[in-house]
Amino acid sequence: MEKMKAARWYAAKDIRVEETKIPTPNDNQVKIAVKFTGICGSDLHEYTHGPQLIPVDEPYPLNGHQGTTTLGHEFSGVVEEVGKNVKNIKKGDRVTVEPIFRNPESPFIPTGEYNLSEPLGFVGLTANGAFAKYVVVEDYMVHKMPDSMTFEQGAIVEPAAVAAYAVHRSGMKMGDTVFIVGAGPIGLLTVQVAVATGASQIFVSDLSENRLKKAKEVGATHTFDARQKDIPQKIKELTGNGVDIFIDAAGVQASFDNGINSLRNGGTAVLVALFGRKVTHDALNQTLRELTILGTAAYRNIFPQTIALISSGRLPVEKLITRVISLDEIVEKGFETLTKDPSEVKILVDLEK
Amino acid sequence: MEKMKAARWYAAKDIRVEETKIPTPNDNQVKIAVKFTGICGSDLHEYTHGPQLIPVDEPYPLNGHQGTTTLGHEFSGVVEEVGKNVKNIKKGDRVTVEPIFRNPESPFIPTGEYNLSEPLGFVGLTANGAFAKYVVVEDYMVHKMPDSMTFEQGAIVEPAAVAAYAVHRSGMKMGDTVFIVGAGPIGLLTVQVAVATGASQIFVSDLSENRLKKAKEVGATHTFDARQKDIPQKIKELTGNGVDIFIDAAGVQASFDNGINSLRNGGTAVLVALFGRKVTHDALNQTLRELTILGTAAYRNIFPQTIALISSGRLPVEKLITRVISLDEIVEKGFETLTKDPSEVKILVDLEK
Repeated sequence: MEKMKAARWYAAKDIRVEETKIPTPNDNQVKIAVKFTGICGSDLHEYTHGPQLIPVDEPYPLNGHQGTTTLGHEFSGVVEEVGKNVKNIKKGDRVTVEPIFRNPESPFIPTGEYNLSEPLGFVGLTANGAFAKYVVVEDYMVHKMPDSMTFEQGAIVEPAAVAAYAVHRSGMKMGDTVFIVGAGPIGLLTVQVAVATGASQIFVSDLSENRLKKAKEVGATHTFDARQKDIPQKIKELTGNGVDIFIDAAGVQASFDNGINSLRNGGTAVLVALFGRKVTHDALNQTLRELTILGTAAYRNIFPQTIALISSGRLPVEKLITRVISLDEIVEKGFETLTKDPSEVKILVDLEK
Repeated sequence: MEKMKAARWYAAKDIRVEETKIPTPNDNQVKIAVKFTGICGSDLHEYTHGPQLIPVDEPYPLNGHQGTTTLGHEFSGVVEEVGKNVKNIKKGDRVTVEPIFRNPESPFIPTGEYNLSEPLGFVGLTANGAFAKYVVVEDYMVHKMPDSMTFEQGAIVEPAAVAAYAVHRSGMKMGDTVFIVGAGPIGLLTVQVAVATGASQIFVSDLSENRLKKAKEVGATHTFDARQKDIPQKIKELTGNGVDIFIDAAGVQASFDNGINSLRNGGTAVLVALFGRKVTHDALNQTLRELTILGTAAYRNIFPQTIALISSGRLPVEKLITRVISLDEIVEKGFETLTKDPSEVKILVDLEK
């Protein structure tokens, strides 16, 4: 049996880079030789206080996966082998992957709302992922990359699609004003998408000065230290009557309140962050001010557009890469660094290094 | 000085039917001889624990009104006199009134979003209203009634517009399923609008058996005693995976939770009730299930459509009238009855009685 190295999650704070079996595709799967894989916030959650999405107590129903899991769901690579039912994708194709599972029995498959199908699952969480030389994915997950797109960019398509879908859901139009709370990778990618969409004023708040600096670099027009007390008042002064759109990429009571209070009457909030706790919500204020609050679950039908924006240069996602490391370094220079250093944004693992 | 009788709010539990001055229109106002005026839930709130919207401590900025107030904002009548700048409306016109004030300096006037202009105000709350023989309103508030519409129907256009706007905001389409929580006047009117919109299944919950009976009469397909514990499960069984739309016409934690839990993934909640307290909200659930939650503030640009639906027979709002009383009876047979008897729905005051 052929072996390869992989970063495998055993428990919180226990990720091991070790030899494991090279996976084989079934008839409807694609085997990819991985080039670059990004470390995502949800990988970090699994590392610091998981399991969250990893199926430990019972198998993930769509594939039977359970327990120890190779992480990694933001990646690019080259197709190594395809199952016999796979059309449209062939050995040698340069690809990126939309890692969300689709339950074929869900009522949301015929409607095209595949991100709503249950149970929610992703390659690298409910199946072995791409912190390894090879990964096997379902054929419907694979998107070809244009020749002009680098493999580094390809590894950032997935989080960029989260940001693109959130902005798409918000209904943002050219000229709109937006407040993005949280300048981690998703927040910063949202800034880039807002720039590409023609937002006229882009406000960003975060606790880290370094991240706010990065936000300015990628297009924020105004930044605020999240500890400031009067952010909604400041935003109302700068916009006249509040922002059209608020995107919560932080997911705590304070970000929610600051965002809601910064909206104009009739404005729209988009919750893209995964809140760790319930919030206290002033529903009367929402009604009287006619606010819209949207949840946004990952993405659907937005990878092709995201790829087009990146490859045409309008989403320069590569600017968010702060470090490229080898698989052997993933715990120390990857997970530990991201936990401790808020100036880090996107760390890629080079699987050929 | 000519006098007329009016039902005037002095304080909670202190509404007096007494002689007061007949109002005179200014150059941009219209004086209406009132035919019928409905008692609204917000009138009831002012009666039981006001002031809520009545400006007691300082004058309403748009007209200087303050203190003792003639209530009544759901009404029909005949134009008695118009100010010299008033075009399009003339003496003798049969009319109904959209009682929301528009602040001409608001940024929401040029955009047509006049219901978002501040400070929020209504005839009968921040100006003297129509529990009186005559009322004076701004010219932009007046809508002509078709000949086929009765004055009783005309008095219910305003709450019907609240329901119509909520359904309009929800994006409801023919065939959608909807859960309406609360079968008071707004909830029941929402049932009628859902019927007119082609909703395929219309679920209603309330604490009152009589109101649920009424809900069935006006088109609900299924009703639930709100005390039942398993309403979301029942609704999921009956719909397959939950309703497309939830409309909260009750405005408490339990109605909010029941409604949210009854939605399909990707569904839409509309908060039309005025919540008395903040709610605890599971924002993570909203994100993972991609739910949309909308506030809806009164109405805008929907009176003509509401009038058309009523006069064509598709919104038989007159079915909600449970009692017609005289002005002298308004406290005993109006406010007190509505406070005590949940089988009452819409009580009209006949100003000519």
